[in-house]
Amino acid sequence: MKTPVRLLACLLFMVVTEGHAADKLPAASHGVAYPEGWKDWATIAVSHRNDNNTLRVILGNDVAVQAARAGDTNPWPDGAILGKVVWKDTQLENWKAAIVPDEFVHAEFMFKDSKKYTDSYGWGWARWVGLEQKPFAEGMDVCIACHTPVKNRDWVFTDPASLP
Amino acid sequence: MKTPVRLLACLLFMVVTEGHAADKLPAASHGVAYPEGWKDWATIAVSHRNDNNTLRVILGNDVAVQAARAGDTNPWPDGAILGKVVWKDTQLENWKAAIVPDEFVHAEFMFKDSKKYTDSYGWGWARWVGLEQKPFAEGMDVCIACHTPVKNRDWVFTDPASLP
Repeated sequence: MKTPVRLLACLLFMVVTEGHAADKLPAASHGVAYPEGWKDWATIAVSHRNDNNTLRVILGNDVAVQAARAGDTNPWPDGAILGKVVWKDTQLENWKAAIVPDEFVHAEFMFKDSKKYTDSYGWGWARWVGLEQKPFAEGMDVCIACHTPVKNRDWVFTDPASLP
Repeated sequence: MKTPVRLLACLLFMVVTEGHAADKLPAASHGVAYPEGWKDWATIAVSHRNDNNTLRVILGNDVAVQAARAGDTNPWPDGAILGKVVWKDTQLENWKAAIVPDEFVHAEFMFKDSKKYTDSYGWGWARWVGLEQKPFAEGMDVCIACHTPVKNRDWVFTDPASLP
Protein backbone atom coordinates (compact mmCIF):
# COMPACT_ATOMS: atom_id res chain seq x y z
CA MET A 1 0.00 0.00 0.00
CA LYS A 2 1.41 3.42 -0.95
CA THR A 3 2.20 5.99 1.78
CA PRO A 4 -0.49 8.56 0.77
CA VAL A 5 -3.09 5.78 0.72
CA ARG A 6 -2.02 4.58 4.17
CA LEU A 7 -2.10 8.12 5.48
CA LEU A 8 -5.61 8.58 4.11
CA ALA A 9 -6.67 5.25 5.65
CA CYS A 10 -5.27 6.44 8.99
CA LEU A 11 -7.20 9.69 8.90
CA LEU A 12 -10.36 7.85 7.90
CA PHE A 13 -9.80 5.39 10.76
CA MET A 14 -9.51 8.28 13.24
CA VAL A 15 -12.70 9.91 11.98
CA VAL A 16 -14.62 6.63 12.09
CA THR A 17 -13.42 5.61 15.56
CA GLU A 18 -14.11 9.11 16.86
CA GLY A 19 -17.73 8.55 15.82
CA HIS A 20 -17.89 5.13 17.50
CA ALA A 21 -16.47 6.51 20.75
CA ALA A 22 -19.65 8.51 21.17
CA ASP A 23 -21.93 5.45 20.86
CA LYS A 24 -23.40 3.95 23.99
CA LEU A 25 -22.17 0.39 24.47
CA PRO A 26 -24.15 -2.48 26.03
CA ALA A 27 -23.55 -3.08 29.76
CA ALA A 28 -20.97 -5.61 30.97
CA SER A 29 -21.65 -9.37 31.07
CA HIS A 30 -20.19 -11.14 34.13
CA GLY A 31 -18.23 -7.94 34.80
CA VAL A 32 -16.59 -8.14 31.37
CA ALA A 33 -16.82 -4.94 29.29
CA TYR A 34 -18.38 -5.06 25.81
CA PRO A 35 -15.69 -5.60 23.13
CA GLU A 36 -16.18 -2.51 21.00
CA GLY A 37 -15.70 -2.95 17.27
CA TRP A 38 -15.95 -6.76 17.09
CA LYS A 39 -18.01 -6.63 13.91
CA ASP A 40 -14.87 -5.48 12.09
CA TRP A 41 -12.61 -8.23 13.45
CA ALA A 42 -11.01 -10.77 11.10
CA THR A 43 -12.22 -14.35 10.75
CA ILE A 44 -10.50 -17.24 12.53
CA ALA A 45 -12.96 -20.00 11.56
CA VAL A 46 -16.61 -20.84 10.87
CA SER A 47 -18.86 -23.66 12.04
CA HIS A 48 -22.27 -25.21 11.50
CA ARG A 49 -23.84 -26.97 14.46
CA ASN A 50 -26.34 -29.63 13.47
CA ASP A 51 -27.45 -30.24 17.07
CA ASN A 52 -29.01 -26.79 17.48
CA ASN A 53 -29.16 -25.65 13.84
CA THR A 54 -26.90 -22.66 14.11
CA LEU A 55 -24.20 -21.17 11.93
CA ARG A 56 -21.23 -19.38 13.48
CA VAL A 57 -18.29 -17.25 12.57
CA ILE A 58 -15.37 -17.17 15.00
CA LEU A 59 -13.64 -13.80 15.01
CA GLY A 60 -10.64 -12.50 16.89
CA ASN A 61 -9.14 -9.21 17.97
CA ASP A 62 -5.67 -8.39 16.62
CA VAL A 63 -3.87 -10.32 19.38
CA ALA A 64 -6.03 -13.41 18.79
CA VAL A 65 -5.76 -13.29 14.99
CA GLN A 66 -2.00 -12.94 15.14
CA ALA A 67 -1.79 -15.89 17.57
CA ALA A 68 -4.13 -17.99 15.40
CA ARG A 69 -2.03 -17.37 12.28
CA ALA A 70 1.19 -18.13 14.17
CA GLY A 71 -0.25 -21.33 15.68
CA ASP A 72 0.30 -19.85 19.15
CA THR A 73 -2.96 -21.13 20.65
CA ASN A 74 -2.23 -23.48 23.55
CA PRO A 75 -2.25 -21.36 25.58
CA TRP A 76 -3.62 -18.33 23.76
CA PRO A 77 -1.68 -15.17 24.72
CA ASP A 78 -2.95 -12.66 27.25
CA GLY A 79 -4.94 -9.95 25.50
CA ALA A 80 -6.50 -12.35 23.00
CA ILE A 81 -10.27 -12.03 22.59
CA LEU A 82 -12.21 -14.69 20.68
CA GLY A 83 -15.73 -13.93 19.48
CA LYS A 84 -18.36 -16.39 18.34
CA VAL A 85 -21.23 -14.87 16.38
CA VAL A 86 -24.27 -17.15 16.18
CA TRP A 87 -27.28 -17.27 13.86
CA LYS A 88 -30.12 -19.74 13.40
CA ASP A 89 -29.64 -21.52 10.07
CA THR A 90 -31.91 -21.56 7.04
CA GLN A 91 -31.88 -22.62 3.39
CA LEU A 92 -30.77 -20.07 0.77
CA GLU A 93 -33.71 -19.33 -1.52
CA ASN A 94 -31.64 -19.26 -4.71
CA TRP A 95 -29.41 -22.24 -3.95
CA LYS A 96 -31.26 -24.77 -1.84
CA ALA A 97 -28.16 -26.79 -0.88
CA ALA A 98 -26.63 -23.74 0.80
CA ILE A 99 -27.37 -23.27 4.49
CA VAL A 100 -27.07 -19.61 5.49
CA PRO A 101 -27.71 -17.30 8.48
CA ASP A 102 -31.27 -16.56 9.52
CA GLU A 103 -32.10 -14.77 12.80
CA PHE A 104 -29.17 -13.44 14.88
CA VAL A 105 -28.95 -15.33 18.21
CA HIS A 106 -26.04 -13.89 20.21
CA ALA A 107 -22.36 -12.98 20.22
CA GLU A 108 -20.20 -14.58 22.90
CA PHE A 109 -16.60 -13.89 23.81
CA MET A 110 -13.61 -15.31 25.67
CA PHE A 111 -11.14 -12.73 26.99
CA LYS A 112 -7.72 -14.18 27.83
CA ASP A 113 -6.06 -12.70 30.92
CA SER A 114 -4.19 -15.31 32.92
CA LYS A 115 -3.69 -12.93 35.87
CA LYS A 116 -7.12 -11.31 36.05
CA TYR A 117 -9.23 -14.43 35.48
CA THR A 118 -7.50 -16.97 37.72
CA ASP A 119 -10.89 -18.19 39.01
CA SER A 120 -12.18 -19.05 35.54
CA TYR A 121 -9.20 -20.82 33.95
CA GLY A 122 -7.55 -17.68 32.60
CA TRP A 123 -10.53 -16.51 30.57
CA GLY A 124 -13.27 -13.96 31.05
CA TRP A 125 -16.47 -15.49 29.63
CA ALA A 126 -19.16 -13.15 28.35
CA ARG A 127 -22.17 -13.11 26.05
CA TRP A 128 -24.55 -10.51 24.65
CA VAL A 129 -27.92 -11.81 23.50
CA GLY A 130 -30.10 -10.80 20.56
CA LEU A 131 -30.00 -7.74 18.34
CA GLU A 132 -30.49 -5.65 21.50
CA GLN A 133 -27.23 -7.17 22.88
CA LYS A 134 -28.62 -7.88 26.35
CA PRO A 135 -25.79 -8.91 28.71
CA PHE A 136 -25.90 -12.59 29.67
CA ALA A 137 -25.86 -12.85 33.48
CA GLU A 138 -26.24 -16.54 34.33
CA GLY A 139 -22.61 -16.89 35.35
CA MET A 140 -19.34 -17.91 33.72
CA ASP A 141 -19.88 -21.47 35.03
CA VAL A 142 -22.53 -21.98 32.35
CA CYS A 143 -19.91 -21.25 29.67
CA ILE A 144 -17.18 -23.25 31.37
CA ALA A 145 -19.35 -26.36 31.79
CA CYS A 146 -19.91 -26.54 28.04
CA HIS A 147 -16.22 -25.96 27.26
CA THR A 148 -14.93 -28.68 29.63
CA PRO A 149 -14.30 -31.20 26.78
CA VAL A 150 -11.56 -28.85 25.55
CA LYS A 151 -9.91 -27.95 28.86
CA ASN A 152 -6.63 -29.35 27.51
CA ARG A 153 -6.85 -27.01 24.51
CA ASP A 154 -6.89 -23.89 26.72
CA TRP A 155 -10.71 -24.27 26.83
CA VAL A 156 -11.13 -23.39 23.14
CA PHE A 157 -13.03 -25.58 20.65
CA THR A 158 -11.93 -23.69 17.55
CA ASP A 159 -9.07 -24.77 15.33
CA PRO A 160 -8.05 -21.73 13.27
CA ALA A 161 -9.08 -22.39 9.66
CA SER A 162 -6.30 -22.96 7.16
CA LEU A 163 -5.53 -19.80 5.18
CA PRO A 164 -3.00 -18.98 2.45
CA MET B 1 -11.29 4.95 21.80
CA LYS B 2 -9.12 7.77 23.17
CA THR B 3 -7.09 9.98 20.80
CA PRO B 4 -3.60 8.81 21.91
CA VAL B 5 -4.72 5.20 21.50
CA ARG B 6 -6.08 5.92 18.06
CA LEU B 7 -2.87 7.70 17.10
CA LEU B 8 -0.85 4.72 18.29
CA ALA B 9 -3.11 2.35 16.31
CA CYS B 10 -2.54 4.53 13.24
CA LEU B 11 1.22 4.41 13.55
CA LEU B 12 1.10 0.66 14.11
CA PHE B 13 -1.12 0.29 11.04
CA MET B 14 1.39 2.23 8.92
CA VAL B 15 4.29 0.10 10.10
CA VAL B 16 2.41 -3.13 9.49
CA THR B 17 1.15 -2.18 6.03
CA GLU B 18 4.64 -0.96 5.08
CA GLY B 19 5.84 -4.51 5.77
CA HIS B 20 3.04 -6.04 3.68
CA ALA B 21 3.86 -3.78 0.73
CA ALA B 22 7.13 -5.65 0.31
CA ASP B 23 5.40 -9.06 0.00
CA LYS B 24 5.00 -10.55 -3.44
CA LEU B 25 1.34 -10.93 -4.35
CA PRO B 26 -0.15 -13.70 -6.54
CA ALA B 27 -0.60 -12.86 -10.22
CA ALA B 28 -3.90 -11.50 -11.56
CA SER B 29 -6.90 -13.74 -12.31
CA HIS B 30 -8.84 -12.76 -15.45
CA GLY B 31 -6.84 -9.53 -15.44
CA VAL B 32 -8.09 -8.69 -11.94
CA ALA B 33 -5.36 -7.80 -9.42
CA TYR B 34 -5.08 -9.77 -6.17
CA PRO B 35 -7.04 -8.05 -3.34
CA GLU B 36 -4.29 -7.45 -0.82
CA GLY B 37 -5.25 -7.80 2.82
CA TRP B 38 -8.52 -9.72 2.37
CA LYS B 39 -7.77 -11.99 5.34
CA ASP B 40 -8.37 -9.00 7.60
CA TRP B 41 -11.70 -7.99 6.05
CA ALA B 42 -14.90 -8.06 8.12
CA THR B 43 -17.54 -10.77 7.79
CA ILE B 44 -20.71 -10.24 5.75
CA ALA B 45 -22.11 -13.79 6.05
CA VAL B 46 -21.25 -17.48 6.25
CA SER B 47 -22.62 -20.55 4.45
CA HIS B 48 -22.46 -24.32 4.43
CA ARG B 49 -23.02 -26.03 1.09
CA ASN B 50 -24.32 -29.55 1.42
CA ASP B 51 -24.01 -30.25 -2.31
CA ASN B 52 -20.21 -30.05 -2.34
CA ASN B 53 -19.48 -30.26 1.41
CA THR B 54 -17.85 -26.88 1.80
CA LEU B 55 -17.98 -24.17 4.44
CA ARG B 56 -17.62 -20.53 3.48
CA VAL B 57 -17.17 -17.12 4.97
CA ILE B 58 -18.20 -14.14 2.87
CA LEU B 59 -16.00 -11.12 3.55
CA GLY B 60 -16.06 -7.60 2.19
CA ASN B 61 -13.72 -4.66 1.77
CA ASP B 62 -14.72 -1.44 3.57
CA VAL B 63 -16.99 -0.27 0.73
CA ALA B 64 -18.79 -3.62 0.62
CA VAL B 65 -19.17 -3.93 4.40
CA GLN B 66 -20.56 -0.43 4.67
CA ALA B 67 -23.03 -1.16 1.85
CA ALA B 68 -24.03 -4.49 3.44
CA ARG B 69 -24.74 -2.85 6.79
CA ALA B 70 -26.70 -0.04 5.14
CA GLY B 71 -28.73 -2.49 3.00
CA ASP B 72 -27.34 -0.81 -0.12
CA THR B 73 -26.83 -4.03 -2.10
CA ASN B 74 -28.97 -3.98 -5.24
CA PRO B 75 -26.91 -2.74 -6.93
CA TRP B 76 -23.78 -2.90 -4.81
CA PRO B 77 -21.78 0.36 -5.06
CA ASP B 78 -18.73 0.74 -7.30
CA GLY B 79 -15.59 -0.10 -5.34
CA ALA B 80 -17.22 -2.92 -3.39
CA ILE B 81 -15.27 -6.18 -3.31
CA LEU B 82 -16.91 -9.36 -2.03
CA GLY B 83 -14.74 -12.32 -1.08
CA LYS B 84 -15.82 -15.92 -0.58
CA VAL B 85 -13.34 -18.08 1.31
CA VAL B 86 -14.00 -21.80 0.87
CA TRP B 87 -12.94 -24.87 2.87
CA LYS B 88 -13.87 -28.55 2.64
CA ASP B 89 -15.98 -29.44 5.69
CA THR B 90 -15.27 -31.93 8.46
CA GLN B 91 -16.55 -32.93 11.89
CA LEU B 92 -15.05 -31.24 14.97
CA GLU B 93 -13.26 -33.86 17.04
CA ASN B 94 -14.44 -32.50 20.39
CA TRP B 95 -18.04 -31.71 19.40
CA LYS B 96 -19.22 -34.15 16.75
CA ALA B 97 -22.33 -32.16 15.79
CA ALA B 98 -20.18 -29.19 14.77
CA ILE B 99 -19.07 -29.07 11.13
CA VAL B 100 -15.90 -27.03 10.75
CA PRO B 101 -13.30 -26.11 8.11
CA ASP B 102 -10.90 -28.77 6.85
CA GLU B 103 -8.63 -28.20 3.83
CA PHE B 104 -8.59 -24.71 2.26
CA VAL B 105 -10.06 -24.81 -1.28
CA HIS B 106 -9.93 -21.32 -2.75
CA ALA B 107 -10.80 -17.65 -2.28
CA GLU B 108 -12.94 -16.04 -4.94
CA PHE B 109 -13.88 -12.40 -5.39
CA MET B 110 -16.33 -10.10 -7.16
CA PHE B 111 -15.05 -6.58 -7.83
CA LYS B 112 -17.83 -4.07 -8.56
CA ASP B 113 -17.00 -1.47 -11.21
CA SER B 114 -19.96 -0.67 -13.39
CA LYS B 115 -17.82 1.28 -15.87
CA LYS B 116 -14.80 -1.01 -16.14
CA TYR B 117 -16.65 -4.33 -16.25
CA THR B 118 -19.46 -3.59 -18.69
CA ASP B 119 -18.89 -6.92 -20.46
CA SER B 120 -19.38 -8.97 -17.29
CA TYR B 121 -22.45 -7.36 -15.73
CA GLY B 122 -20.55 -4.72 -13.75
CA TRP B 123 -18.35 -7.15 -11.87
CA GLY B 124 -14.78 -8.37 -12.22
CA TRP B 125 -14.80 -12.08 -11.35
CA ALA B 126 -11.63 -13.64 -9.98
CA ARG B 127 -10.45 -16.64 -8.01
CA TRP B 128 -7.18 -17.81 -6.46
CA VAL B 129 -6.91 -21.54 -5.86
CA GLY B 130 -5.29 -23.47 -3.01
CA LEU B 131 -2.85 -22.38 -0.35
CA GLU B 132 -0.45 -21.42 -3.16
CA GLN B 133 -3.18 -19.01 -4.46
CA LYS B 134 -2.85 -19.97 -8.10
CA PRO B 135 -4.82 -17.57 -10.31
CA PHE B 136 -7.93 -19.15 -11.85
CA ALA B 137 -7.82 -18.63 -15.62
CA GLU B 138 -10.81 -20.46 -17.07
CA GLY B 139 -12.69 -17.25 -17.78
CA MET B 140 -15.25 -15.06 -16.03
CA ASP B 141 -18.02 -16.90 -17.91
CA VAL B 142 -17.51 -19.89 -15.62
CA CYS B 143 -18.32 -17.68 -12.61
CA ILE B 144 -21.17 -15.88 -14.33
CA ALA B 145 -22.89 -19.10 -15.43
CA CYS B 146 -23.16 -20.26 -11.82
CA HIS B 147 -24.41 -16.86 -10.62
CA THR B 148 -27.17 -16.56 -13.24
CA PRO B 149 -29.96 -17.55 -10.78
CA VAL B 150 -29.25 -14.28 -8.95
CA LYS B 151 -28.90 -11.92 -11.90
CA ASN B 152 -31.77 -9.85 -10.49
CA ARG B 153 -29.89 -9.46 -7.19
CA ASP B 154 -26.91 -7.79 -8.89
CA TRP B 155 -25.48 -11.30 -9.41
CA VAL B 156 -24.85 -11.86 -5.69
CA PHE B 157 -26.16 -14.90 -3.77
CA THR B 158 -25.29 -13.57 -0.31
CA ASP B 159 -27.75 -11.86 1.98
CA PRO B 160 -25.74 -9.93 4.57
CA ALA B 161 -26.20 -11.70 7.91
CA SER B 162 -28.21 -9.89 10.55
CA LEU B 163 -25.96 -8.08 13.07
CA PRO B 164 -26.67 -5.92 16.10
